[in-house]
Amino acid sequence: MSSSFGTLFRISTFGESHGVGVGAIVDGCPAGLELSEADIQPQLDRRRPGQSDLTTPREEADQVTILSGVENGKTLGTSIGLLVRNKDQRPGDYGEMNDVPRPSHADFTYQAKYGTRASSGGGRSSARETIGRVAPGAIAEKILREEYGIEIVAWVSAVGEEVAGEINPLTINREQVDRNLIRCPDATAAVRMEEKVREIRDAKDSIGGVVSCVCRNVPAGWGEPVFDKLDAMLAHAMLSLPATKGFEVGSGFAGTCLRGSQHNDPFVKKGGRLGTVTNNAGGMLGGISSGEPVLFRVAFKPVATIGVSQQTVDFDGSPVTLEAKGRHDPCVVPRAVPIVESMAALVLLDLAMRQKMRNA
Amino acid sequence: MSSSFGTLFRISTFGESHGVGVGAIVDGCPAGLELSEADIQPQLDRRRPGQSDLTTPREEADQVTILSGVENGKTLGTSIGLLVRNKDQRPGDYGEMNDVPRPSHADFTYQAKYGTRASSGGGRSSARETIGRVAPGAIAEKILREEYGIEIVAWVSAVGEEVAGEINPLTINREQVDRNLIRCPDATAAVRMEEKVREIRDAKDSIGGVVSCVCRNVPAGWGEPVFDKLDAMLAHAMLSLPATKGFEVGSGFAGTCLRGSQHNDPFVKKGGRLGTVTNNAGGMLGGISSGEPVLFRVAFKPVATIGVSQQTVDFDGSPVTLEAKGRHDPCVVPRAVPIVESMAALVLLDLAMRQKMRNA
Amino acid sequence: MSSSFGTLFRISTFGESHGVGVGAIVDGCPAGLELSEADIQPQLDRRRPGQSDLTTPREEADQVTILSGVENGKTLGTSIGLLVRNKDQRPGDYGEMNDVPRPSHADFTYQAKYGTRASSGGGRSSARETIGRVAPGAIAEKILREEYGIEIVAWVSAVGEEVAGEINPLTINREQVDRNLIRCPDATAAVRMEEKVREIRDAKDSIGGVVSCVCRNVPAGWGEPVFDKLDAMLAHAMLSLPATKGFEVGSGFAGTCLRGSQHNDPFVKKGGRLGTVTNNAGGMLGGISSGEPVLFRVAFKPVATIGVSQQTVDFDGSPVTLEAKGRHDPCVVPRAVPIVESMAALVLLDLAMRQKMRNA
Amino acid sequence: MSSSFGTLFRISTFGESHGVGVGAIVDGCPAGLELSEADIQPQLDRRRPGQSDLTTPREEADQVTILSGVENGKTLGTSIGLLVRNKDQRPGDYGEMNDVPRPSHADFTYQAKYGTRASSGGGRSSARETIGRVAPGAIAEKILREEYGIEIVAWVSAVGEEVAGEINPLTINREQVDRNLIRCPDATAAVRMEEKVREIRDAKDSIGGVVSCVCRNVPAGWGEPVFDKLDAMLAHAMLSLPATKGFEVGSGFAGTCLRGSQHNDPFVKKGGRLGTVTNNAGGMLGGISSGEPVLFRVAFKPVATIGVSQQTVDFDGSPVTLEAKGRHDPCVVPRAVPIVESMAALVLLDLAMRQKMRNA
Repeated sequence: MSSSFGTLFRISTFGESHGVGVGAIVDGCPAGLELSEADIQPQLDRRRPGQSDLTTPREEADQVTILSGVENGKTLGTSIGLLVRNKDQRPGDYGEMNDVPRPSHADFTYQAKYGTRASSGGGRSSARETIGRVAPGAIAEKILREEYGIEIVAWVSAVGEEVAGEINPLTINREQVDRNLIRCPDATAAVRMEEKVREIRDAKDSIGGVVSCVCRNVPAGWGEPVFDKLDAMLAHAMLSLPATKGFEVGSGFAGTCLRGSQHNDPFVKKGGRLGTVTNNAGGMLGGISSGEPVLFRVAFKPVATIGVSQQTVDFDGSPVTLEAKGRHDPCVVPRAVPIVESMAALVLLDLAMRQKMRNA
Repeated sequence: MSSSFGTLFRISTFGESHGVGVGAIVDGCPAGLELSEADIQPQLDRRRPGQSDLTTPREEADQVTILSGVENGKTLGTSIGLLVRNKDQRPGDYGEMNDVPRPSHADFTYQAKYGTRASSGGGRSSARETIGRVAPGAIAEKILREEYGIEIVAWVSAVGEEVAGEINPLTINREQVDRNLIRCPDATAAVRMEEKVREIRDAKDSIGGVVSCVCRNVPAGWGEPVFDKLDAMLAHAMLSLPATKGFEVGSGFAGTCLRGSQHNDPFVKKGGRLGTVTNNAGGMLGGISSGEPVLFRVAFKPVATIGVSQQTVDFDGSPVTLEAKGRHDPCVVPRAVPIVESMAALVLLDLAMRQKMRNA
Repeated sequence: MSSSFGTLFRISTFGESHGVGVGAIVDGCPAGLELSEADIQPQLDRRRPGQSDLTTPREEADQVTILSGVENGKTLGTSIGLLVRNKDQRPGDYGEMNDVPRPSHADFTYQAKYGTRASSGGGRSSARETIGRVAPGAIAEKILREEYGIEIVAWVSAVGEEVAGEINPLTINREQVDRNLIRCPDATAAVRMEEKVREIRDAKDSIGGVVSCVCRNVPAGWGEPVFDKLDAMLAHAMLSLPATKGFEVGSGFAGTCLRGSQHNDPFVKKGGRLGTVTNNAGGMLGGISSGEPVLFRVAFKPVATIGVSQQTVDFDGSPVTLEAKGRHDPCVVPRAVPIVESMAALVLLDLAMRQKMRNA
Repeated sequence: MSSSFGTLFRISTFGESHGVGVGAIVDGCPAGLELSEADIQPQLDRRRPGQSDLTTPREEADQVTILSGVENGKTLGTSIGLLVRNKDQRPGDYGEMNDVPRPSHADFTYQAKYGTRASSGGGRSSARETIGRVAPGAIAEKILREEYGIEIVAWVSAVGEEVAGEINPLTINREQVDRNLIRCPDATAAVRMEEKVREIRDAKDSIGGVVSCVCRNVPAGWGEPVFDKLDAMLAHAMLSLPATKGFEVGSGFAGTCLRGSQHNDPFVKKGGRLGTVTNNAGGMLGGISSGEPVLFRVAFKPVATIGVSQQTVDFDGSPVTLEAKGRHDPCVVPRAVPIVESMAALVLLDLAMRQKMRNA
């Protein structure tokens, strides 16, 4: 297992769908920060299931409790324990699938790795694990916002083949993103996306999508060559999320078709600093932030657990027909939005702290 | 700086284009492995510049020396020092560009981060840094091959808009890849790609491309949830490479358009183990290897340093016209092939060692 | 902050005297281990205050709850959350001392480091923090015992100038250690020690002491040169404990007076393996376990918080007379016994797992 | 193997007595530091063998070369490669001992751990390994001196039972330490110590000793609770050195005999800051530096390889009489002085950098 992430701002997480709860320890949070559960709860609320008819109908309140590291409303600089209790601790809802590894799910590989696996809900491969990322991410985000004015905004840019029009990364904000259930700021595309998700849901199927993200006001100089470059850390963070299959920064795969003379971002004076005319780089050069907005995209595959009947085999290799009965999201991307933002915040703050030392 | 990669099989690297040389320390290599420079040199030769008219004409022999950790032709289990001397240690060839940050190069961000930068050749952002990855990668690959029969093969699947036809990941081998200069096993596409690169080179421009990679015979069970999943570590490794802008595993971004019922890979009995009928997952489920071939793709942007005249500004913000005079690759992907393979080997071996403990 | 310890068996801890509770995340615990709270509680009970008239009269039940990582009584291989709730969460008992840094306590240095500090009980410098070590240590110990037959036994070998006679490290067990309140298996010395502690307690003063520890049945080969040698890791672990000032392994400081011809431990055949006639080395050679018992000693200073009147200054430098009113141990060593055992277990299991990979 | 040390100022080392050479990579060195081989060589010269008739007569020049990370005499902020070539690369001088594990040497445990071992000179357990610590340590020390005015001075405080009188830690300097060959600033004791070493040497035996160390001008606030406390990191560093058996900070083992009322260091105003009247704490409280001098002592056992005839057994368990023929130090402590200083510097700088971020 590797349940920790980060070097100086470091989180360690725990928890499955069953058991008492899920949570995290945040190590390295600066002292003197005003912090209460109210700073953390909003992103957990954006993440939780049951928000709309587009997501799984499971109702989970997901109330966070701060266990340590805060006194009189301010952080002490010591490690912060965070706990979200599970509403229903009993395993069993998925019991019928125990002998059959769900196609494209982690049942098979957890069994291969550990010789055992949680009897329900995917254990640590469950999306519920991401609570342990979102709660610390909300703390990281608060620090980034207060200390640097950093704004992190993610949105749904595609659901299946329904693609959003161009979104202005300089102005997009969360209020705009949250205006519709699918969290796509292109209102027209959003309607098509929501229709698509309802159609898929009614077909007991699932569909993939893309989440885009911008981080504004990141100062130049963040990212640690050679191996902990900003893009490398973001890629690591995003591909560690359940159901992700791809990551692009800046021009991404499309940029491979450009010539250098087209792709290069010429420098230009922007107020007191150098900026670039274009931003194919996505806000980083040589793995170090340039001062331009950090731009990246994350691909989410369709959820594996579907009600559609599937021909597969059980652990013994005998053919079975599988129809999942659990309640699952037909499309994860609306709920993935705050998760992507949280991981971006964790990456940025850790690199900020590694750089801060140099500027002291 | 963060010049180390890996947890149990761990490399630390050093070296710029100028200075005495570049190299690495390999920590955690098992004892008793037969090892000499001859095991490492071939991949360095595939990486070095000057291999053909498609790459930079700089001639660098890049001969590796083992400094420690080997006695009587066998590893001791102790750390292995590796050194490749620089042929020409004098800075200066790039001197004319010192006041101007090259567009889309790391000059600007290194200066912002460190308050200084190497006067020539990009310092640690130079492609020469990758020698410190390829040499240890060759050792990792030897261990993976001997202990598990693992085969890692990368190839060029796109140069700009010239895209290779389907390559069979079950059978492709390095001999096939190396049959042409561009390292694309689709011979017809290779011709078009090479023409494209020569055209770009003659225009003093550059072009991007895509490298695909397969890792065969990876046993089920490798990859450490939650944060060090196999896909997360591969993404981290690949995005830490110079000039990379994207990473996909399995179905990647294209897979977001599929429904779960299309994307799911049903299980099937394959000899004594379970396998999958399709492999949209790219060989991993929940971040743990499934036993199916590991498949991923890496996007490389066009090289930033081009001879084409560029309008930009110097560090003071004054407009300048820049025409780079250095010798650079018009397209990095042929030389990137062994680098991608090396990083894949480093990731796999580290995760193998983390899992091995469980199987003992 | 650095609230994590270990590489493969890795704990992260949180919690102060105030707040909801203290606890830990255990990452890397093998799957399939039978585990319940009953495996952890006994060492917590040996650690808790209020066990006898020799310790602080504060009553803390210190009941542990497993939050995750266990299903149907067996570990899943996933991270294990552990929580011990604080009985009394209100800060304040120590309020009167807020303007005065207690001599030889961490008030002053926490303030210097973080610009703030917990208003009560020492925050993370409180002995209560060690719950986060003892609970995971009990798990580590269980694994070491079941998998290798390892026995870890610590005991009090000195309280001030009252020194225990020779204890046989080959036979000493916990039952013998727990026969008296002071946890010294030399019954005669124990009487003198207990008298000394009562005398010191009645004088509102405190006294130091030494805890000795043996780890039996540790196989040869554990410990990672160069920097993570077995002795280095034990020293790190023990000096990270509150109130420790010294660490010795094997012959320790006394051994510096011996000649090599006296100090060297000749090899001899012991059953099927090589052992040594003497054990001045303390069970390790070159930082790697030799198969002989691992022997070490830890020095604990007298507790800083005393009722005796002290002349000191407040944070502004103004002279004050301080008489601590809190309830504190006159001598920490009896309660330190399970803490030392726990840290030894954490070190051994982590090194065991790092070695296990080689033996696979 | 674990050949790396440090978190932000991080070294990785390589090299045995045989092979091309020994060295290190220094990662995290700040940019803009004036640095050349001349900054590093003096401590290597104090460490090298053959300095006097008190040490092994092996002549090793131990000239260091900087391989990377420095341009025009200043550091670039990138990783620094360091290499010291071995004079004599041929294994064999110790060949006769190959079938016999030398008592109290690491032959036996390396064999147990790795299934092999270097045929000569102890491989990575050889004192030659410490070159990889001293060279980076000299860089760390330069930074600490220039940025904070920190002075680190170690000296020999005991050779066997010959103990130095009280040394004033506030004024002792390296010139005073180096006035005699044994590196003891108490001139009278030094004479006795040197006589003792010559006597031991002529008897083909060896003797242990103690090295004391002071670090002055360390600001308050360095050290990372809970696990990376200043004392814990120093203990880790020192016990990772070959031949060490004990570590004490401040009052150490002797302090266990004091009462709290005697041991506590009252605070007092010292210029603009708070200091303490006494320094039993050894310059740290709760594992965080207090601003008072950091004081610690390290116990070195007698060297294992002696010419005196020893009864032992070979790897098969058959009795043999062993008389080592190699050239070895009769007492390591004079040469250990710069090694202890180097490790102290590595610990302090790493913790300084971890704290610097907070002060920014």
